[in-house]
Amino acid sequence: MIEAVSPHIPEGVHFVPAHPLAGTEHSGPEAGFAELFDNRWSLLVPVEGSDPAAVAQLRALWEGMGAYVEEMDAEHHDLVLAVTSHAPHLIAYTMVGVADDLRRVTDSEVIKYSAAGFRDFTRIAASDPTMWRDVFLTNKEATLEILGRFTEELFALQRAIRTGDGEHLHDYFTRTRAIRRGIIEAGQDTDAPDFGRVKKP
Amino acid sequence: MIEAVSPHIPEGVHFVPAHPLAGTEHSGPEAGFAELFDNRWSLLVPVEGSDPAAVAQLRALWEGMGAYVEEMDAEHHDLVLAVTSHAPHLIAYTMVGVADDLRRVTDSEVIKYSAAGFRDFTRIAASDPTMWRDVFLTNKEATLEILGRFTEELFALQRAIRTGDGEHLHDYFTRTRAIRRGIIEAGQDTDAPDFGRVKKP
Repeated sequence: MIEAVSPHIPEGVHFVPAHPLAGTEHSGPEAGFAELFDNRWSLLVPVEGSDPAAVAQLRALWEGMGAYVEEMDAEHHDLVLAVTSHAPHLIAYTMVGVADDLRRVTDSEVIKYSAAGFRDFTRIAASDPTMWRDVFLTNKEATLEILGRFTEELFALQRAIRTGDGEHLHDYFTRTRAIRRGIIEAGQDTDAPDFGRVKKP
Repeated sequence: MIEAVSPHIPEGVHFVPAHPLAGTEHSGPEAGFAELFDNRWSLLVPVEGSDPAAVAQLRALWEGMGAYVEEMDAEHHDLVLAVTSHAPHLIAYTMVGVADDLRRVTDSEVIKYSAAGFRDFTRIAASDPTMWRDVFLTNKEATLEILGRFTEELFALQRAIRTGDGEHLHDYFTRTRAIRRGIIEAGQDTDAPDFGRVKKP
């Protein structure tokens, strides 16, 4: 993205790449709300020659909206985002696509029984298609690297299921709980069961 | 599961396999609440020779707790659950495991920036390890079949990213939105952004 924009910046204009890690599956101005950036992180990715005063000004803008700010270089940014956002989104889109394709299970069954776990994936897979197409096309390398690691791990777990290695499965499923606790303690998600989902939609 | 239990049913005792599709990432008696089964589905899987009166009694029990009831055979049940529950859970566990393993992205980065999508996966991956080990070991075939389809689709999307096929990505991401709408219209999830997540945990 930086490579695409940089050549078009006019003389005297500052370019400080940055974006927040906040938002919902909804898009557009009407999807905003006052607390959107409270306690969420915004990442600044200064490029070579970024004016420190312009960077500081942008930091103040994000902080003024309630966000925390972190600076990192572009390569590290791409990897962090591939893990925390891009790979999870592609995986969610894929799982929903598989369900939609499966003729031996009807769409109405997929919908009726979605509270068993699947519906969480459909929220992410309802995100804006144009934005996500562009994300994957511009963060190609890091996303493909994480997806490679993901399929490697998935194959190891599939093998444990096939061979009946219950200990491997149990150990793996125990380890992943710690990350959830860390996220709740850091105030990045709620501890309420099912995200405190509204019970009667 | 039916094969494991059936031989041990004493004379005069009715065995009607059934379970609800409801619950949260929390387990045990204290994780229950009065509305847990309201508008959720419970599946009955009568076996050969199941007493119709016993099946009707169990149906009445679930309906009395506010659930809808559907009957299906064991093979179809296993496939439906593999799609709506078992595969999504294994995929979520895998994604969280990958993030936890990645030394070039620290745990604290994974946690701080989790609001970008990843945190949804950590809720599912915080489910009870013992129950989920047993689920995968007893629904081996159907889960492996769905995971096979999942990796096939994932590879096709990875290829589209690698070759820059934006149209394929955009079409795929547009199609998956319809399933989300169906789930909301069927009252199986809330339309509130981010599941109506509590804003200040």
